[in-house]
Formats: sequence, structure tokens, C-alpha cells
Amino acid sequence: MSSIYGKIFKVSTWGESHGKAIGAVIDGCPSGIPLTEEMIQKSLDRRRPGQNLMVTPRKEADKVSILSGVFEGKTTGTPISLMIPNEDQRSHDYSDMIKWYRPGHADLTYDGKYGFRDYHGGGRSSARETAARVAAGAIARQILEHLFQTEILAWVTSVGGEPSDIDPETVTYESIEASPVRCPDPKASLRFEEKIKEAKADSDSVGALVTLLVRRPPKFVGEPVFEKVDALLAQAMLSLPACKGFEIGLGFEAAKMRGSKHNDEIYFENGVYRTRTNNAGGTLGGITNGEDILCRMPFKPTSTIGQEQKTAGRGGVNGILKAKGRHDPCVGVRAPVIVESMAALVLIDLVLRQRRFL
Amino acid sequence: MSSIYGKIFKVSTWGESHGKAIGAVIDGCPSGIPLTEEMIQKSLDRRRPGQNLMVTPRKEADKVSILSGVFEGKTTGTPISLMIPNEDQRSHDYSDMIKWYRPGHADLTYDGKYGFRDYHGGGRSSARETAARVAAGAIARQILEHLFQTEILAWVTSVGGEPSDIDPETVTYESIEASPVRCPDPKASLRFEEKIKEAKADSDSVGALVTLLVRRPPKFVGEPVFEKVDALLAQAMLSLPACKGFEIGLGFEAAKMRGSKHNDEIYFENGVYRTRTNNAGGTLGGITNGEDILCRMPFKPTSTIGQEQKTAGRGGVNGILKAKGRHDPCVGVRAPVIVESMAALVLIDLVLRQRRFL
Amino acid sequence: MSSIYGKIFKVSTWGESHGKAIGAVIDGCPSGIPLTEEMIQKSLDRRRPGQNLMVTPRKEADKVSILSGVFEGKTTGTPISLMIPNEDQRSHDYSDMIKWYRPGHADLTYDGKYGFRDYHGGGRSSARETAARVAAGAIARQILEHLFQTEILAWVTSVGGEPSDIDPETVTYESIEASPVRCPDPKASLRFEEKIKEAKADSDSVGALVTLLVRRPPKFVGEPVFEKVDALLAQAMLSLPACKGFEIGLGFEAAKMRGSKHNDEIYFENGVYRTRTNNAGGTLGGITNGEDILCRMPFKPTSTIGQEQKTAGRGGVNGILKAKGRHDPCVGVRAPVIVESMAALVLIDLVLRQRRFL
Amino acid sequence: MSSIYGKIFKVSTWGESHGKAIGAVIDGCPSGIPLTEEMIQKSLDRRRPGQNLMVTPRKEADKVSILSGVFEGKTTGTPISLMIPNEDQRSHDYSDMIKWYRPGHADLTYDGKYGFRDYHGGGRSSARETAARVAAGAIARQILEHLFQTEILAWVTSVGGEPSDIDPETVTYESIEASPVRCPDPKASLRFEEKIKEAKADSDSVGALVTLLVRRPPKFVGEPVFEKVDALLAQAMLSLPACKGFEIGLGFEAAKMRGSKHNDEIYFENGVYRTRTNNAGGTLGGITNGEDILCRMPFKPTSTIGQEQKTAGRGGVNGILKAKGRHDPCVGVRAPVIVESMAALVLIDLVLRQRRFL
Repeated sequence: MSSIYGKIFKVSTWGESHGKAIGAVIDGCPSGIPLTEEMIQKSLDRRRPGQNLMVTPRKEADKVSILSGVFEGKTTGTPISLMIPNEDQRSHDYSDMIKWYRPGHADLTYDGKYGFRDYHGGGRSSARETAARVAAGAIARQILEHLFQTEILAWVTSVGGEPSDIDPETVTYESIEASPVRCPDPKASLRFEEKIKEAKADSDSVGALVTLLVRRPPKFVGEPVFEKVDALLAQAMLSLPACKGFEIGLGFEAAKMRGSKHNDEIYFENGVYRTRTNNAGGTLGGITNGEDILCRMPFKPTSTIGQEQKTAGRGGVNGILKAKGRHDPCVGVRAPVIVESMAALVLIDLVLRQRRFL
Repeated sequence: MSSIYGKIFKVSTWGESHGKAIGAVIDGCPSGIPLTEEMIQKSLDRRRPGQNLMVTPRKEADKVSILSGVFEGKTTGTPISLMIPNEDQRSHDYSDMIKWYRPGHADLTYDGKYGFRDYHGGGRSSARETAARVAAGAIARQILEHLFQTEILAWVTSVGGEPSDIDPETVTYESIEASPVRCPDPKASLRFEEKIKEAKADSDSVGALVTLLVRRPPKFVGEPVFEKVDALLAQAMLSLPACKGFEIGLGFEAAKMRGSKHNDEIYFENGVYRTRTNNAGGTLGGITNGEDILCRMPFKPTSTIGQEQKTAGRGGVNGILKAKGRHDPCVGVRAPVIVESMAALVLIDLVLRQRRFL
Repeated sequence: MSSIYGKIFKVSTWGESHGKAIGAVIDGCPSGIPLTEEMIQKSLDRRRPGQNLMVTPRKEADKVSILSGVFEGKTTGTPISLMIPNEDQRSHDYSDMIKWYRPGHADLTYDGKYGFRDYHGGGRSSARETAARVAAGAIARQILEHLFQTEILAWVTSVGGEPSDIDPETVTYESIEASPVRCPDPKASLRFEEKIKEAKADSDSVGALVTLLVRRPPKFVGEPVFEKVDALLAQAMLSLPACKGFEIGLGFEAAKMRGSKHNDEIYFENGVYRTRTNNAGGTLGGITNGEDILCRMPFKPTSTIGQEQKTAGRGGVNGILKAKGRHDPCVGVRAPVIVESMAALVLIDLVLRQRRFL
Repeated sequence: MSSIYGKIFKVSTWGESHGKAIGAVIDGCPSGIPLTEEMIQKSLDRRRPGQNLMVTPRKEADKVSILSGVFEGKTTGTPISLMIPNEDQRSHDYSDMIKWYRPGHADLTYDGKYGFRDYHGGGRSSARETAARVAAGAIARQILEHLFQTEILAWVTSVGGEPSDIDPETVTYESIEASPVRCPDPKASLRFEEKIKEAKADSDSVGALVTLLVRRPPKFVGEPVFEKVDALLAQAMLSLPACKGFEIGLGFEAAKMRGSKHNDEIYFENGVYRTRTNNAGGTLGGITNGEDILCRMPFKPTSTIGQEQKTAGRGGVNGILKAKGRHDPCVGVRAPVIVESMAALVLIDLVLRQRRFL
């Protein structure tokens, strides 16, 4: 298990989907930063399931408590302990999980690695674990916004292959949050809803593509050669449940191009170096160049589905699983705030490690 | 700078493209492993430029020396220091670099981050740095092969958008090495050569897509939640110069699919759990399940090209750069052995961190 | 702040003396280890103040809860979150702390480093923080005992310079716990009590010397050159509040000796290498040799005392502080279980990092 | 093996006493710092054996080369690779080492941990390894001096129990270097020489006590709770060959004192908080308070001696070893520059990790 992220701004997350609580401890947060439970709660509320038909109807209040590290409304520089009680633990829905390994899920590999597991839900491999990341990420975002006016946005670009028409330049939080499927293109949003409803009606699930945009990122951060900003973002995204890939800038398209087309022209204007285009996605040599960071990540369809599936179980049996319980038909729809939070954790740690001599 | 990779098998690389030498120190290598300079040299020779017209004609002998950590042909458990002298340092070819920031290159961001840089070539952002990774990776591969008969292969799947027809199941080292562009499909190989020659004739460069395959990977390795095997592979690949993305299993395709199609059926046979299909690419919940690991990475076209390019330079000037010197028209062609080496470094560290109680 | 200890068995502690709670998250604990709240509580109860007149009369119940990482009485390999509510927060006793920097305390340096601090007590520099270490250490001890029958004992060897007569070979838990000042020499114990009572009567405090003994330590653990077992033990001990030194084996006496006297004769008997004497204190070259580990640590007198003391305060004033509140007259008396816990955390992490090839 | 020190200023040392070379790679050094081989050589020359009769007559030139990371006389922010060839490898002197485990040495534990070892000398446990630390430390000292005018001095306070009379306030580099045994008290220096000559005449060795003084240390550095400045100094010192203890400020004396005597009075004067006395040794709560750092470390007598010693050997034999070869009769005499270097590595890393928000 490696549930600690970061070298200076270190986030240690804990908790299973069906335990008493989940939480995070942030060690290394700078002192003097305004912080209240409300600030964190706002991010958590965006992640919470049960907001609409698109996502699982579990009613998790997800109320965060700050247990340490804050005094008179400001961080003290000491570890910040955040706790979110698990309120809705209807674990009898998961009874079949004791016997069968869900295809596409981590049941088998956890049993293989750890010898046994808490079979009441996904344990640490559950998407519930990401609530702790969102809580910690809220603090990181606050600092980035304060220091650099950094704005971090993520949205759903495609569901089940259905396209959308979105100009990253014009996307706002409001346009994302206005959509129940977090797609700022209203027409595509309706089509995405349809796709998800169809999957749900079929007791099935569907994949989604998520875009991440960082406006006004901290400049010249990234630690070559192994901890380039794009490498750390890729790690952070692939550490999310169901994420199967990552690309930055033109990404996979770059493999098809000529250098003369791909290279972004550099120019100097008003005291700043800029690029005319942003094919690179905001990074050169693993260091941010000040242009927007732009990434895309595919999220696979939720593995737990209501249809019958052939599978094997503990003790070497083969058979059929028909999963009960409530599951998101499209996990990608909940991914945006989590993606934003991970991006914030990556960037704040790089900012705090940044140190130019004199 | 963060030039150290790994938690237990720690690789510290050093050296610039035009300095005296480059090298790596491996701290934490288990003792008792047979190791000679020849074993490492074999991997280095596969990376070396100047082997054919496809790659830069720089003649780097890349002769590795083991300076410590090996006694009577076996590792002693102490740090292994590897050094590769830089023999061909024709740095006058790079004179324009003093003045101009090459578009698509790290010149600007290094100046921004560190205040100045060694302008004789790419310094740490040069592909030359990867030779040290290959040398260290050769040791990791040796251990993985010894312990698990793990076989790590990477090849070029596409150049400039040109497709190939390759069944990962049948790919061999020989079929990859037989191709000057490391493409095991002989017909595609010819077309790739053509693409690269065309780009070269145009003083241009071209991108490529690389596939990574790990046969018989160590089982049940990966450290959720932040250091899942796929997350660490993604970081490792994006840490390579010119790599712009990563996908595992079906990757971006998964975003378009239904769960009922994407989930791999699990079955138990001959004492082992297997999956019928391998859409997941060898990992579930960030832990290897024993199936082949299968990833793809796009490499952008070489940024240094011989064509005239508009750009800016130090001191805030705007102008035109026409790069001299010798450059790979397609860096992707040299990527396979580097990709294999990084995969080996990721896996060996996870193996050594793996510890199940009793 | 650096509140995370360990590379594999990672302990992240949090909480201030006067916040809502304190706690620890253990990431990287092996799976399958029996663990209940009672097991941890036993260690905590040994640390708790208020047990007798020797220590501060604060009544802290120190009831630990396990919030995650344990299923059906066994660790699952996922992060274990431990929480201990702060019940007795009579913070009005500490009112003077707002104004004055207590001599010998961290008030000044926390203000200097973090800009401000929670002035209700010592915050993170309070001895209360060590309760989280004891809770985490209880798990480490459990594993060491299970794997190697390791026994870790610490006791008070001297108070205020008063000597004792103790043969480490014969010390037992019972003989330590039988003494209110944790001194297994009953006569010295009485004299130590007297010393402490005298100090208390004078509104003063007194220092103490603590001995650590590890019987049947894990063999051949320690990671030269920077993480030798003795180096990590020294760090662990000096990380404790009030600890001002560390010595192992003959320690400072060794500086006066000849090699012919100091060297421990090695002999082979019954299939094992042993040493006739144990001047080295159980380590050679930073690696345990299987002999008992024997260390000594001085703990300075509690810095908060009831006497008037000249000091300075915030805003550059100079004046007189007469501290109110309840304070241990001798922190050393509470140190043994904390010292044992830190030794356990050092050893378990080295055990889990230990990996010999094949 | 753990041969990497530091979180930001990371030093990776390598090399055995009888291999081709030893060296260090520094990753994370800030850019723009003036650095030449001569600057490093000066420190190395102070460590070199063969300077006088007091130390081993091995003639090691210890000529350092900078292989990377420096451009036009300044650090570039990229890894700095330092190499020191091993010139004098008269390994036939060590022939007995193949058979016998030297008492007090790491031969046995290295064999136990790693399965075998390079028996030509001490390998990584040799004091020769510290030359790489001194080389890396020279860079750290340079930065500390530049930023804070920090002065780091260490000297020999006692040899074989023989006392000296030294006022730390008045010690200078010159007074230390003027003494062949690095003791700034000229009379004691003569007595120490005598002690060492006697030991040598007896084919024996003798221990020594070393004092470390840091003037104008960086203020408010140290990362509680686990990486307090005193805890990291203790680890650094105990990581040195032959070091058996550590104390800071009054150290072990503090265990005998009353709080009213031990506490240092704080006062504010000329815009700065100071303490009247410095019993704490420059640290409160693990954070430097700006007063001098003052520590003492005992170094045991060299374990390899020319006298006959009973011991055991590989394969379970018991017998007699009479070590040949040239050995320092008093390793403590060479310790000062190494102690200074380790202190510099501890402090520079804490400085670079220090980050107060806004």
C-alpha cells in the first residue's frame, strides 16, 4: 500500500468504502493559510453521489471535520487531519462479493496481494476513497488560487463515444456544474444523459472521456528527469480508479505529425515568453512554460454491473455473478472534481519543492 | 531536479549531452546477482545512435564501466556506479542554441527554472540522458528475467500515422531488431523508413507510436492507491523525452465502451486465475493480475529540425532559428529499448517493495 | 513539518495537545496481522499521565479507536487510521502562554518558523503528540514479537543524577511497571520518587536517564551507509521531546578505550555467530548482529516549571513568566513506553525493507 | 543499502575501499552557485590519510573530478557527479580478511546481510567511503557560508580519555589545523599524540571524542516531529563509521539537572531574540533558535588492530586473527572534517525544505 502522495505537501489518505470513516492527513502544508470546513465541504459536495439520476443513489452526506492543524481559521503548519464519516453502509447489498470476484474489479488482485480483503464493497479500490483526495485537494487549490490565481477545471468530453463540441477557452465552472453529467456543451450533455440512461436500463455501464484544463498554472515547475510535471500528472490520473490513460497537449495525435507542425512558435511580448499555439499542453522538458495545461483521460465503464457475468470465485470455482447493489452507470461523470483535486496536489507539491538559488 | 527513481531499487542518473560523461548509481540492488559490463553493454548497444540512416549519425561508442558494487562477477548489495564517457562532443554544431530558444524544446523552461543552462545541446533534457536509464534498466531486467522469466519488449507501431499490423502475441526480440525502425511488421517497417526519409529530406521530423509488452510480469505487484502499477508506468513513460501520452489495455478506447464488453471474464484453470480477454492490459485496481502488460505511448516528432522556425531568444528578442547539427528525424525509433528499461525499473522496485506477511 | 516516519511501514501522526483529537495513520502495514483496539490500548495505558503523583494529574482517558484497515480482527494491508480524542482540554491554565515564550520550550521557534502558533499548550511540540507514536508502535511491536519473539524494554536508570543498580539481563516488564517511576531497582525507585517530589515541592523539574534494551532483535537489519540501525535509533530518540542525546553499547565510554578492550570477541557455537561481550550494543557496521541492542538517552528536566523565570514575549518585550497549569515534574518517567515504541517503529521498517536476493 | 541522503539536496554516495573509484552524485543542488574542483579538493585534503604519523600511511591522492552539473564555473541545477579514483589499492595486505571476521568490524554482518562481500578491505563500511561525503559536503558548506555566513567547525576534544581545555567561542580553523590530531588546545594536542603513539606501539588503537560547533546556523530550520534538526544531526553522526553516540547542548548532563538551571533565559535585544546561556545547544523543539549548535560524538577505537585477537571465520571456524596492513590507530583524528561535512548536508537540506507561506 502506498497511500501517501507528495514530497513536501504530503497527503496520507485512509479509509474503506464500508468502514467507519475515511480521511486524509496533510503534512507539510504551509502555515498562515485561511482554512475552514466550509471551504473543503464545497469541493466534497461536487463529488458527492446521489445528486441526480446519473450517479449512484447512495446518500452520503460526506461531512468533513478538521481535527487538527488549524487555529483561529488559519493553518498552523502542523498536520491537518480531515475526517469524513461513512454514513450509508448498506453492506448487505454486497453479499455476493464474498463469493465471486467481480470481472474488471480489484477483488482478485487484492486477495492475491494481501491474502484476504474486506468484501463489503471495494475497500480501498472503491471510488469512495477519492473523497479523501478531494478534501485534501481543496486545500491545495486554495493555495494555488491565492498564489497564482490558478484555475483548475475538468469536464466530461465524451460518454460512450458520443462527441461534444467544447472550446476549452470558454469553459467555466458554472457551465460545467450546470450539466448533470458535467459537460459544458448543453446539447452533448443531453446526449450523454441519454447514453447513461440507456446503459442503466440495460443493467450496464458506459465509459467516458474527461478533459483537464489548468489556467494560469505556476510557471517553471516540474522536476526533470523523473518527476516532470507531465509525468506526475500522468501518475496522479492513472492512480484514479477506472482511469486507463493520459495524454497532454496533442497527445496521441503528436505521434502522427511532423515537427514543423507540432512545434509551438515562441515569441516575446510584454515582458513574457509565450507560444502562438499550445500543442505541447503547457509543458516543455517536463517544466511548465506558463501556457494552459491541457490533458485528457479515458475512464473505463464501471466494472460492477447488474448483468449476469461469468467469473470465478474464491477457492477456485467458476460460475455466474449477478451483482446487486447500487452502482454508478458512468464513473466518469464523477471524475471531474477528483481530476481537478489530483492536479492541484501535483502542482502544489512541485511549487513547494521549487527553489531557485538567490 | 529529481533524477532519482525508485524507493528500494533506487537509480540516480547524472550527466549532460555534452559533458565529460553520463552515468547512473543504483542503490538498493539485491546482492548475489551475476553482473558484467557486457550484460549492460548489450542493452546500450540497442539504444546507440548511428546504427543506420534512420537515426542521428553521431558515433557514440557508449562504453559502460562498472565502478563499484560488483565483486567476482556478482552484485554485492552496495551501490553500483555505472559510467559512460561522452566521446563525440562536436559542440560547435550547436552554436545557434546560445542565442535562440528552440521551439518545442526545453531551452526556455530550463532558463526560466534554473536561471541559465549549458547551451551545448540539450543538457539534461537531451535524449542522451536516457543512456543512463538503459544501463540501469539492464540490471533490473536481468533480475526480473531471473526471478520470473519476465520478458519485456517494445516496438514501433506507427510512424507519422502510418499503420502496421502486429499481433503482440507473436512479437519477438529478433523480429523487432531485424527492423531498422524497430517495427516487427516487415511491410510496415519499409513504409516507416520511407516516412522518416521523407521527413529527413524535408529537414523535418516525424512522430511515432510505441507499444510496450511485458510477458510473465511479476504477479500482484503495484501499491495502491497512489503507486498503482499503471500509474507508475505512466509516470515512467511520460518522464521520457518527447513522450506525450500513455494508455494501458484498451486505453482511450475504453471510454467509448460498455462495461459488459470491457470487463474481462475471470476463470480458474490449472490452479491459476486467468482472464479470457485482456482488455485491462494486465492490471486490476493498480495491481498486476499476471496477464501480459500492454501499453502504448505516442512520441512527438523531434523538436530540433533543420527548417527555419520563428522563435524568441534570450534577452527578449524575436527572430528566426535554422538549427544546424545532426538530429534524429524520428526519436520514436530509438524509444523501444528505453521504454523497456523504464518498465523494468518500475517493476523491479515494486517487486522489492512487495511483502506479504508470513 | 515532517510528521511521517518510515519508508515501508509509514506512520503519519497528527494532532495538537489542545485540539479535538490526536491520531496516526499507518500505511504499509502487512496484511493478516491480528489487531484489536485492546492491543493498542494496553500500550497507551502505560503512557497515560495521571497514574500517580509522579506525573501530571491531567486525566486523559486516551481511548483509541481503529477507523480503518482492520477487518475481522486482522489487518488488511490498507491504511490503519487510529484516533484518540482529547478529552481534558483545560486550556485556560495556559493563558500566560499567549504572551510569553517559555524558556526551554519550542514556543519561540514555532513562532519564528510558522509565523504564529496555537498557544493553548505546546501544540505539536507537546509530549501529548507521542501518544500517537505509542499507538502506532503497539502494532509494530506486535509484528516483531510475532516474527522474532523480539522483546523491547525501556526503563529509568537515573533521576537527577541519582544512580541505580540494574542488570539489563534480569529486567522484566513486571519489574519496570511495578515502579511508579519505571525503575526496576526498587531502592533506586524510592530515591527517584523522592527526587521528583522534591523538585515538585520546589515548583521545579528534574531530568532523567532512560535505558533501552531490545532482546532477540531482528538479525542483519540496518541499511548502511545513511540508515544504519544505530543512526535510525538515534534519530528516533532525538525526535522525542526533551531527549538530548543517544549512545549505543558503551557509547561515550568507547572514546576512552583501547581497541583491544573494546572489540567484542566473535565465536561460532551451535550454528550461530555470537560475541562474548556486547560492547557494541548489538550492531556492527550499522547492521544488527543478533546480540541485544542496548542504548541510553538523557531526558532534560521539563521546561515548563512553576517558578518565576525571566524571559521574553511576542512583540519584543522582556519580563517574567510564572507558569500555571499542571506539568510533569519529570518527563523522563513517561519516556520508557515511548522509547520502546520508537524502537519498534525503527526496527519494523528495517525488517520490511530487508530483502536478500534468492 | 541506503546510500542516499537528503530530501531536496540529495547525495548519493558510491564506492568501496578497494574498487576503481568512489564518488557522489548530488541531485537537487540549486543552480547558479560558484563551484570548482579546487573548492572541493580543499575539504578532501583535510580528510586525506597519510598527512602525518598519526594516521594511516596510505598515500591516497584523493583527486576529485566534477563530471557533470557545472557549467562555466557555476552549478546548473542538474545532478553534480563527483569521482575520486582509488589510487592505492595494496589489497594483498588484507589477505587474512578472506578467512576471519575482524572483531568490532562489519565483516560478519555484511556476510550475514548480503550473503558475501568484497573481502579486500572494509568495502562500504570502510572509512574511505566518507571521502565521498566530504566532497558532497564541501558544496553544502559553500552554500551555507554564502547564504548565512555559517561556519562549521569540528575538533578532537579527547583521546583515550585524556582531557583538553578548549573554549568553543575561541576555536578557529587555524587552531584546529595547526594540530596533527586536530585539537585546538596545543598542550592537549601533544598529550593526544602521545596517546596515539603509545597505542600504535602496542599494535593497538584508541578512541576519541569529537566536538561539533556551528556558528551562525540557518535560523528556524528543522522539521518536527520526526526530522527535528537534532534528530537529523544524530542520525548523520551515527551514520559515520565508529561513531557510538551523540549529544547536543548539555546532553547527558541534562539528565542530572533541575529545569530552573537547565532552561536558557530568553531575552529580546537589537531586534533579535537570544538566550543568555546555551544549554540547549542551539535548538528548541527540534528547530534552530539561532544560537550556536554544539554537539559531541564519541568515536570508538579503530577495530582493526595488529594484536592477535580470538575470533571466528566463515564456515563456522573459531581461531586467531593477527591483522596485517596499515590502519589508523585513532580514527577519531580524521573525523572532524567528516563531521563538519555531515552537519552541512543536514543543514542545507533543511534550509531547502524550509518554506514559510507568503
